[in-house]
Amino acid sequence: MTKLPPAPLTMEGSWILHQMARLRWNSAQLPEALTSLIAKLESQGSAVFAMPGHKGDLMFVHFRATPDELNQADVIVARALDGIADIVNSYVSVIELGLYESTVKLYDSLVAKGIAPYTPEWTQAVEETLGRQRAAMSSRLLPAIPEDKYLCFYPMNKRRGEQKNWYSLPIQERQRQMAEHGEVGRRYAGSVRQIISGSIGYEAWEWGVDLFSNNPLVFKHLVYEMRFDQASADYGEFGDFFFGVRLKASGVAAYLKGETAA
Amino acid sequence: MTKLPPAPLTMEGSWILHQMARLRWNSAQLPEALTSLIAKLESQGSAVFAMPGHKGDLMFVHFRATPDELNQADVIVARALDGIADIVNSYVSVIELGLYESTVKLYDSLVAKGIAPYTPEWTQAVEETLGRQRAAMSSRLLPAIPEDKYLCFYPMNKRRGEQKNWYSLPIQERQRQMAEHGEVGRRYAGSVRQIISGSIGYEAWEWGVDLFSNNPLVFKHLVYEMRFDQASADYGEFGDFFFGVRLKASGVAAYLKGETAA
Amino acid sequence: MTKLPPAPLTMEGSWILHQMARLRWNSAQLPEALTSLIAKLESQGSAVFAMPGHKGDLMFVHFRATPDELNQADVIVARALDGIADIVNSYVSVIELGLYESTVKLYDSLVAKGIAPYTPEWTQAVEETLGRQRAAMSSRLLPAIPEDKYLCFYPMNKRRGEQKNWYSLPIQERQRQMAEHGEVGRRYAGSVRQIISGSIGYEAWEWGVDLFSNNPLVFKHLVYEMRFDQASADYGEFGDFFFGVRLKASGVAAYLKGETAA
Amino acid sequence: MTKLPPAPLTMEGSWILHQMARLRWNSAQLPEALTSLIAKLESQGSAVFAMPGHKGDLMFVHFRATPDELNQADVIVARALDGIADIVNSYVSVIELGLYESTVKLYDSLVAKGIAPYTPEWTQAVEETLGRQRAAMSSRLLPAIPEDKYLCFYPMNKRRGEQKNWYSLPIQERQRQMAEHGEVGRRYAGSVRQIISGSIGYEAWEWGVDLFSNNPLVFKHLVYEMRFDQASADYGEFGDFFFGVRLKASGVAAYLKGETAA
Amino acid sequence: MTKLPPAPLTMEGSWILHQMARLRWNSAQLPEALTSLIAKLESQGSAVFAMPGHKGDLMFVHFRATPDELNQADVIVARALDGIADIVNSYVSVIELGLYESTVKLYDSLVAKGIAPYTPEWTQAVEETLGRQRAAMSSRLLPAIPEDKYLCFYPMNKRRGEQKNWYSLPIQERQRQMAEHGEVGRRYAGSVRQIISGSIGYEAWEWGVDLFSNNPLVFKHLVYEMRFDQASADYGEFGDFFFGVRLKASGVAAYLKGETAA
Repeated sequence: MTKLPPAPLTMEGSWILHQMARLRWNSAQLPEALTSLIAKLESQGSAVFAMPGHKGDLMFVHFRATPDELNQADVIVARALDGIADIVNSYVSVIELGLYESTVKLYDSLVAKGIAPYTPEWTQAVEETLGRQRAAMSSRLLPAIPEDKYLCFYPMNKRRGEQKNWYSLPIQERQRQMAEHGEVGRRYAGSVRQIISGSIGYEAWEWGVDLFSNNPLVFKHLVYEMRFDQASADYGEFGDFFFGVRLKASGVAAYLKGETAA
Repeated sequence: MTKLPPAPLTMEGSWILHQMARLRWNSAQLPEALTSLIAKLESQGSAVFAMPGHKGDLMFVHFRATPDELNQADVIVARALDGIADIVNSYVSVIELGLYESTVKLYDSLVAKGIAPYTPEWTQAVEETLGRQRAAMSSRLLPAIPEDKYLCFYPMNKRRGEQKNWYSLPIQERQRQMAEHGEVGRRYAGSVRQIISGSIGYEAWEWGVDLFSNNPLVFKHLVYEMRFDQASADYGEFGDFFFGVRLKASGVAAYLKGETAA
Repeated sequence: MTKLPPAPLTMEGSWILHQMARLRWNSAQLPEALTSLIAKLESQGSAVFAMPGHKGDLMFVHFRATPDELNQADVIVARALDGIADIVNSYVSVIELGLYESTVKLYDSLVAKGIAPYTPEWTQAVEETLGRQRAAMSSRLLPAIPEDKYLCFYPMNKRRGEQKNWYSLPIQERQRQMAEHGEVGRRYAGSVRQIISGSIGYEAWEWGVDLFSNNPLVFKHLVYEMRFDQASADYGEFGDFFFGVRLKASGVAAYLKGETAA
Repeated sequence: MTKLPPAPLTMEGSWILHQMARLRWNSAQLPEALTSLIAKLESQGSAVFAMPGHKGDLMFVHFRATPDELNQADVIVARALDGIADIVNSYVSVIELGLYESTVKLYDSLVAKGIAPYTPEWTQAVEETLGRQRAAMSSRLLPAIPEDKYLCFYPMNKRRGEQKNWYSLPIQERQRQMAEHGEVGRRYAGSVRQIISGSIGYEAWEWGVDLFSNNPLVFKHLVYEMRFDQASADYGEFGDFFFGVRLKASGVAAYLKGETAA
Repeated sequence: MTKLPPAPLTMEGSWILHQMARLRWNSAQLPEALTSLIAKLESQGSAVFAMPGHKGDLMFVHFRATPDELNQADVIVARALDGIADIVNSYVSVIELGLYESTVKLYDSLVAKGIAPYTPEWTQAVEETLGRQRAAMSSRLLPAIPEDKYLCFYPMNKRRGEQKNWYSLPIQERQRQMAEHGEVGRRYAGSVRQIISGSIGYEAWEWGVDLFSNNPLVFKHLVYEMRFDQASADYGEFGDFFFGVRLKASGVAAYLKGETAA
């Protein structure tokens, strides 16, 4: 039997940088400097969230076209926060659309035509498929940051345990589990917007997940429900969760006084 | 056989923020600033506990209606402690009542009536059950912080090991184990008050447990005894434990002198 | 067959706080402040040990009657060390005598009499046994800190692995293993004094072990030999080890000059 | 059957030091000091990369002839950065070419000739093979740092699990898996340059991997695809990933202003 | 069958303290203070190594007669480095010669004579054997620190996994594996000097290994080759590795200028 390439095809879009910062509350410049930084970022495809708890007071999220521009965003935030906050965590990733279903369909059809993996014909067919999909999904590859009030961000891996090993499963079985996993997400489609980014090669974790919603309980219900899927129950590994309330430039003064940021 | 939704129904109540802080003992403003902060917090549904050991000198516990208000409490504490203490740990969660028993009963009855999961009839029946339960349990969803002298707080997970995996068990088996687990708790009902909160989507751990008692040995006996339940022995994973003695505004001066806080 | 309560009966005595501190060597007040603190603590049932290595320069050990008094000891040390040392680690526990043998004997006799667990008769018999044992062992429940020159302290757990799970073993098997484990200890009875304290509910680890001896190699031999017992080999999990040489108030000046503390 | 030496022959080349540093943005000397340091390092076989995220702002990579010279590079960077940056991570390794295929071929031929392992004849044949290979591969043992724009660096281990244990596999099976693993790499030969270094004896991880490319997505595709190889899926363990954009002395001023470093 | 004591006999010699320190490079006193400290230590049975990388700039190694003297060395270094360096890591252990072969031989002969473990005759025979061995190996128990240029230090454990458990193996099987392990070491006898120290009771790890050589690649080859032994492949667990180049008092000035320390 032809041995298929095991990795599903993926398409990449915007590069993402998450930054978590702890404020130095006694800085007199804090209100003005923070308001001005957030206003600047809002005009550049970034968003800011205020987090309860010590993992950070603020989470900055930047969507950019290249990693070079992530560096720019990083420097702009670092310089603006210098002396008024400390960056204590971060995450680098790139928006990823995984194509398990299209991949299996394509590979099956190529094998049926007698085309072998990694031949020029195979590679050309793959590029054509990717080109078509990229065109069809460009808005999902290069989205604006959703406007919802709450954000839940977390990194995840697929387990490579001694018995349960995602990377040893046949691609068809992985496709089946991902499809099942997608069903849960679809039931929440009206109340939550999910953006998956890949970080293999950039971070210790393999993927980042951003969930946006106007209902903060939806994160708990969705993540809990998904945890029972085989793809998560057997193969999902999760890092820390970062949860915040959107903070606009106009809300900084109220936030810093301990009033609701709304 | 109908495949039932695997997650038990849950109801959520107050949002909770735990904060652990280390004092800077040489600050001259400490007695006054701390007394005034605690007095303010006592009037807002918060409580403070003095902890022996380096994990923190003080633990602040805030019950609030929304995550936005957790941010407010966070900012109020951070600003008041600025220069006199450092926040070194925290935990964000929301009071959760799990309904394993009602869920299984409801799902069985719906299946018996031929109603399929996620159909409008199914969803309506679920909402009705949740509505009834919420009304019946509103005092447990939105409780005041108990007045007991001692607090024991810890986070926990249900294990997703390669052999022992809570999330792969049938809902009926999980219900059975949770019922058995509840029996131990009921034997301690007179001496300890337990508040469970969910943190999936907000923290790396899945649940937080707050135990309140006037007898500090009860925490040790209860947690030890529960550890032998199958739900804990096979499937419980525990984080760090935080143990404190209630500190009221009126006790701050004595506490800071190294006298009993009583 | 009657299902026995799985947890062995335990008796609790003094509360213990261990604190590890790193000195700031350039402080001019160090000799006087440290001498005076240690002199004060020596009169209050505390002891101090000088540790080689960076885990801390000093280990403070406090035996007290209540957790409230641990807070007092904590504050007294924190205030005295403020500016001259940093507390970098700690451990809260309470002296525990485990009664595996008495528990199994008592439960067997109650079951033989047809008395069911958790009935009033059962509870009364348990309380009577505990009362008798507490009276007989009061000196071990409320001991003075031994006078030996060296201290070895470490926390430990009983494993809850996916295959090897202490908390799933029948109480009779746990009793057998603990008895075997005790045999090793008894062979060292003349040269080492062991104090076990429980920390379930107070710390991430379940127990703390303090070994006192005038021979620093005895710790190595005893702990190594015990590691081959089934109770340790299969089920013991150990945290970090803290090893120190007693430092009396009268030895502080010599210690701070890098001379032997003797 | 003759028991073969289990370790594959290896050849070592340049010593490598990776250093990750966080800038102190408010330092007025930063632009000049950093420009001058990077200019100096560029002339000494070192390269610098700007990293998005908090794992470090800059990654320094030094190729040197001896570990003593790594110390020199370390001191030069440390002194130049003193007061303007903090070194927060590092990695010491030495370029390694593993010779699984030659080793198995050589050992088979020696055994066929009746030459026993570790005899003088055996050792001489090994040294001859290593000498020939070293001459043939000297440019890969002592390479210049590639000029590509992006760098991906990560440490890795081969798993020694309780069931899956790389070090218990026969050398022939390890050779087969490494050959399969190499096939993936060869497909990317045109777009990525890979340099493997060994760190057994120098770091907690066993190997370091440096990938250089002008396409930052190639790292993600290559590492993801390799993760499905048996050598990685079953036996690979990966540390953190460090990803940067080349920063030349001429680009420092722009970088520090938050403009693209290009 | 007689149940033999499971632990091998061991002999202990010098106490060892390893200290890793990071320099504060901007201190003007650094050259003079460091030269004078190292000169002092060289006269007291200590040695110093300069390490590439951020795990520490310097590693101090002290061999002493008692743990009390380790405390003295610790204080001397801490005071001398105060303000010019920070001690960031350390390791306390005592030189250990394990006697697996003699132990098994002795125990077999005692059992053959009908002498039972832990009887006075048994204990006397053990003490006689230890006395003879101590006399024969005194130079290995109380060695000077070898003069070689490079040092590799690492801590290690024997695994107590759920399937692979060193401490559950019969002593004869452990003896066999240790003998096989020793064969690798013997092949490197001419180029590397190994000193094993025990740290059970003093550190979280069970043993420390110091390798001294004039060839820095020997560490890599030796540790890699040993990793395939069953004793390491199945049962060895390794901590971080610390690798340094000897720094004599006379080399400090050159080292601090970033010149070779030779």
